[in-house]
Amino acid sequence: MPHKTLYRDHDGAVILDQTQLPFRVADRRLRRLEDASDAIRGMQVRGAPLIGATAACGVALAMQVDSSDSALERALETLGATRPTAVNLHWALARMRTALSRVPADMRAEAAWTEFETICREDIETNAAIGRHGLDLIHQAAGKHGDRPVRVMTHCNAGWLATLGHGTALAPIYAAHRAGVPVEVWVSETRPRNQGLLTAWELREEGIAHRLIADNAAGLLIARGEVDLVITGADRVAANGDTANKVGTYLKALAAADNGVPFYIAAPRSTIDANCPRGSDIPIEQRDGNEVRQLHGMRHGVPDSIAIAPPEVAVANPAFDVTPARLITAIVTEAGIFPPDALP
Amino acid sequence: MPHKTLYRDHDGAVILDQTQLPFRVADRRLRRLEDASDAIRGMQVRGAPLIGATAACGVALAMQVDSSDSALERALETLGATRPTAVNLHWALARMRTALSRVPADMRAEAAWTEFETICREDIETNAAIGRHGLDLIHQAAGKHGDRPVRVMTHCNAGWLATLGHGTALAPIYAAHRAGVPVEVWVSETRPRNQGLLTAWELREEGIAHRLIADNAAGLLIARGEVDLVITGADRVAANGDTANKVGTYLKALAAADNGVPFYIAAPRSTIDANCPRGSDIPIEQRDGNEVRQLHGMRHGVPDSIAIAPPEVAVANPAFDVTPARLITAIVTEAGIFPPDALP
Repeated sequence: MPHKTLYRDHDGAVILDQTQLPFRVADRRLRRLEDASDAIRGMQVRGAPLIGATAACGVALAMQVDSSDSALERALETLGATRPTAVNLHWALARMRTALSRVPADMRAEAAWTEFETICREDIETNAAIGRHGLDLIHQAAGKHGDRPVRVMTHCNAGWLATLGHGTALAPIYAAHRAGVPVEVWVSETRPRNQGLLTAWELREEGIAHRLIADNAAGLLIARGEVDLVITGADRVAANGDTANKVGTYLKALAAADNGVPFYIAAPRSTIDANCPRGSDIPIEQRDGNEVRQLHGMRHGVPDSIAIAPPEVAVANPAFDVTPARLITAIVTEAGIFPPDALP
Repeated sequence: MPHKTLYRDHDGAVILDQTQLPFRVADRRLRRLEDASDAIRGMQVRGAPLIGATAACGVALAMQVDSSDSALERALETLGATRPTAVNLHWALARMRTALSRVPADMRAEAAWTEFETICREDIETNAAIGRHGLDLIHQAAGKHGDRPVRVMTHCNAGWLATLGHGTALAPIYAAHRAGVPVEVWVSETRPRNQGLLTAWELREEGIAHRLIADNAAGLLIARGEVDLVITGADRVAANGDTANKVGTYLKALAAADNGVPFYIAAPRSTIDANCPRGSDIPIEQRDGNEVRQLHGMRHGVPDSIAIAPPEVAVANPAFDVTPARLITAIVTEAGIFPPDALP
């Protein structure tokens, strides 16, 4: 992890602006509540765990300016409305509410930063534990497939960029690489926002073999026996194990099930929403159609964007889908590996 | 159909250059065999029926220059090697061989043009028949769903652009529109070459309601009940009904089956390959990785391209996948609608 995704500095916090990646590595300072809520909504930070930590940071930034009860409520409300699907956002805000509601107003700013830093530290520890447990699954696959590398398919980015460190779905891959187990990763592009390119960038920096594919290619590769296991992150796991994750995950889970390939979710327990009985209860964010009509990339060495469809073309752009528990082999958490119908 | 995809002119033929669409409508003249083979390989023409007709045209262009037996063999071989998956290419070349082998060399050029024009005329008639048969399926769906429009999902482009007229998968949609049955079409982008934009362009010219989606969104929309039927074209149907079509088709078929939504293939009988027992026997074309690394679009009103991944990123780019017959509700041909295990 050569960069930090989010950290406190002397008068606020700093994020790695992920809308510039993988084309440019640029930091951005967060000074006010609105900086944090804009960064979440605009996906300068993304990934369920990092969204949660950035929301906690937003509360701390708000408390620096006004630490009254009403300012706290306003901050919790503003941040809670940024993105609807990832439950870690609400989990982190609930933690901030609990931590701050008992603290006198004049001590809230410092208490907020303390809780923020606890959330960050715990996220790193949590993901390291996910990596350790998930490594067992990769060892299993390696045992089955002899000398050749274990071929893992993932979707979107659930690497260290999506967290405070290690990642969730990529944590077992990093653990395997460090343990000397050869792995090769199929990285799906993840239209419309192309977070697969973030995964490819992370893997390249770590020296892990990978190949980029169009999202459409996942089915053929799985059917042809070129994938030993699929592992993705999650934005919200319902109580029955149904899992919302980046749109397209469900299609990969269907292809895995159709070909007897294990399909795993890796996520911290904070992603499990006990108050959400099943997948159909998870709100699915609809994002702007321009994400589909336009695409960011590099042109003559400079970050730029290009339109692939004119503005008058109607678009539907759901950001997540729901994979039913029946298609999930197991869910890897910091507490161990669980079948989706027996979550911790 | 406001444009012709391919026609003979005074000293050769003219194609609509589909690599410029939907950003620019530009014709391109074919004068020599190599012009035709380059146009097929470079996807200036695409779609199984149009590939077949363009190959026939390539033979006629070759015969204009040299109509010897060896020149005929060379032309058949050159054109047969352009793209491996669509069987219509080989079907059209076999027709040309049959038509020309009995003809004296000095009459071959004109005989080749005659056979080419027969293939083109028959394609238009075939697709009109596919449209009539497929309309029954849309009528059925309309009957089930009352007053609201029938919502059809398609993949890639199997419209008039992929043929000499009417299209295959879009033919029933055009027939429904003309018959006054309201339809709405979900158009999936179809990365990496974005042929979905060709479909969106066709539908817009015909005034048919449609929405563009990222390929990843298909599963959620089908699972949420927003799709009444899925219909795609085909590049090769094996004797057992397994069907190769643009990569990503299999994923849509899985989602349709998982949710009880009918999944149809629309293709001329020339797409059925009696010599190919099953899907695993169909050769799958691997195309250049730059199709995934780069993307064409519009920038400041001018057609342009953008890189989304640097050239050193390894890519796998299979152009087709295979949908097993068990996931296909029926195959619509010019001879009627058939279950995939009882093809005509």
